[in-house]
Amino acid sequence: MALPRKIVIHELGPREGMQIEKNPVPTSEKIRLVDMLSECSFPEIEVTSFVSPKWVPQMADAEDVVAGFTRQPGTEYTCVYLNAQGLKRAVATNKLDVHGSLSVTASETFSKKNTNRTIDETLLETERRIGILQEMNIAPTEVSVMAAFGCNYEGDIDPNHVMGLVERLMGMAADNALKIRIIQLADTMGWANPVSIRRLVGMIQDRWPEQRINLHLHDTRGLGLANAFAAMEMGVDDFDSAVAGLGGCPYAGFKDAPGNIATEDLVHLCNEIGVETGVHLERLIEIAREAETIVGHPLPGKVMRGGYLDSYRRNAAQIRNEARS
Amino acid sequence: MALPRKIVIHELGPREGMQIEKNPVPTSEKIRLVDMLSECSFPEIEVTSFVSPKWVPQMADAEDVVAGFTRQPGTEYTCVYLNAQGLKRAVATNKLDVHGSLSVTASETFSKKNTNRTIDETLLETERRIGILQEMNIAPTEVSVMAAFGCNYEGDIDPNHVMGLVERLMGMAADNALKIRIIQLADTMGWANPVSIRRLVGMIQDRWPEQRINLHLHDTRGLGLANAFAAMEMGVDDFDSAVAGLGGCPYAGFKDAPGNIATEDLVHLCNEIGVETGVHLERLIEIAREAETIVGHPLPGKVMRGGYLDSYRRNAAQIRNEARS
Repeated sequence: MALPRKIVIHELGPREGMQIEKNPVPTSEKIRLVDMLSECSFPEIEVTSFVSPKWVPQMADAEDVVAGFTRQPGTEYTCVYLNAQGLKRAVATNKLDVHGSLSVTASETFSKKNTNRTIDETLLETERRIGILQEMNIAPTEVSVMAAFGCNYEGDIDPNHVMGLVERLMGMAADNALKIRIIQLADTMGWANPVSIRRLVGMIQDRWPEQRINLHLHDTRGLGLANAFAAMEMGVDDFDSAVAGLGGCPYAGFKDAPGNIATEDLVHLCNEIGVETGVHLERLIEIAREAETIVGHPLPGKVMRGGYLDSYRRNAAQIRNEARS
Repeated sequence: MALPRKIVIHELGPREGMQIEKNPVPTSEKIRLVDMLSECSFPEIEVTSFVSPKWVPQMADAEDVVAGFTRQPGTEYTCVYLNAQGLKRAVATNKLDVHGSLSVTASETFSKKNTNRTIDETLLETERRIGILQEMNIAPTEVSVMAAFGCNYEGDIDPNHVMGLVERLMGMAADNALKIRIIQLADTMGWANPVSIRRLVGMIQDRWPEQRINLHLHDTRGLGLANAFAAMEMGVDDFDSAVAGLGGCPYAGFKDAPGNIATEDLVHLCNEIGVETGVHLERLIEIAREAETIVGHPLPGKVMRGGYLDSYRRNAAQIRNEARS
């Protein structure tokens, strides 16, 4: 299949990045990061996470961050929440685009470790959450499977198992008259490779040809962009990423393992192969460098170190012009 | 085209890595790195570089490094040299597999900056070098084009220009009755992407279907493994890489830009997609971590941080077995 003409990029840096940092990032810096990212015309920026400050103290200032940033037209400002309480906090800010997702983890062990629930318990809870969301006039439009390619606790995940989970979530959506528009596959612990991406994406496309697919890719073992390219060639046009590769991977063997793919590296790839993103790469590279200052340590993004190709192209063209005149 | 059954990996870490380090690495540590890498059954390890100690003081101990390491059967131990003097030093060690390459840089500006010679002067010098090599009974078997995809000084490099240079080098080889076995394309400054890789590789394959292609890929902007995968799908089965991503990129905009693709990340990709490398990944990951100790700072390799998937698979299988019994 040909590459898509344009892809949608969901910028997760402010949320993914801030929840893993050991040293507290000042609220004002979190706000500054969101505001800088707002200059880049992302369709979506995930601003923060409404979770228990007891478990994730880094996110205790979620309301302050939301109060502080400035919305720009054309961008949706979203958040993560894990339960009804978090959802209510998000809605109460009256400033966010609160979405609903029917979500499950493909690994039983990871599900229990991460959320203290089995897969079946998660599905029951998801059913309950649909009711709560509908009471708040939020209609979930996304179905999501985490650890869809492999799990550090369970090893490889069988794509047929993932298909079964998507089937159950899609059935649940149908039972509740929800219009699902997107199926998200998350490679939460960096197990995917271009071949496994093609296999699962192909299976989903065959079964649900009308659905858009979103890939949430982690670069834990360096294959993030190879996977994104393989997926784009299957027609996938919707990706999550985080500026500078903010976020890290809390489940990796080592603390400094890379997390989400770096947004500017994904945009660089797209620019070079002629896929539109609508994102201003030159500014984004500056913000990636600024993100390192904000968290106070190096981040895994590469283009911010290698340099923006168009700036080299501009210099080269100028030198050629000077030589001619 | 299907993926190759097996690829050849040339390990460049000891040479690429040591020439760029600002703090001197003790000779004994350089030797230890080569000896550790010898445990991994590489077809080739590039041990050192015979260059002027005035220009590259890090390589002043080339003879001592060569004297110190222990050869293992099945591995070729090679080196870099830039002129007749370096070549003579390499041969005089009486311990290395000294190869010859007909090499040129596709960018006129980079050629002048890097070697103080134009492309035409380089081609003349190459012609002269064939004679010197033949006097020493070394028959070059490789043709190589550096900066084959783009250049920080000249911008994009036209693939037709690269084809013209390969044509001239192949003609020179034919004139001197040399049997060329491999055409190397080097993405010296990290300009390639999967689409440009396919274009140039396809052009070379169409023109010289009998030649093997080697790709020397840099991960300067994060596309190294995406490029390697795209090339493997074109049948390319010969790659350069450096353990832990040792080496950096001296021509990048920023000092800590990644250089060569990390060998263990390439081997990880191959293992996961069923392409043999013959390289022992678990041991190589340990050596990558050791390489960070040797140079005294973090290196860009990712699998050494993310963790070896087979170790997670083993643990998962053990837990399943225990649950069953």
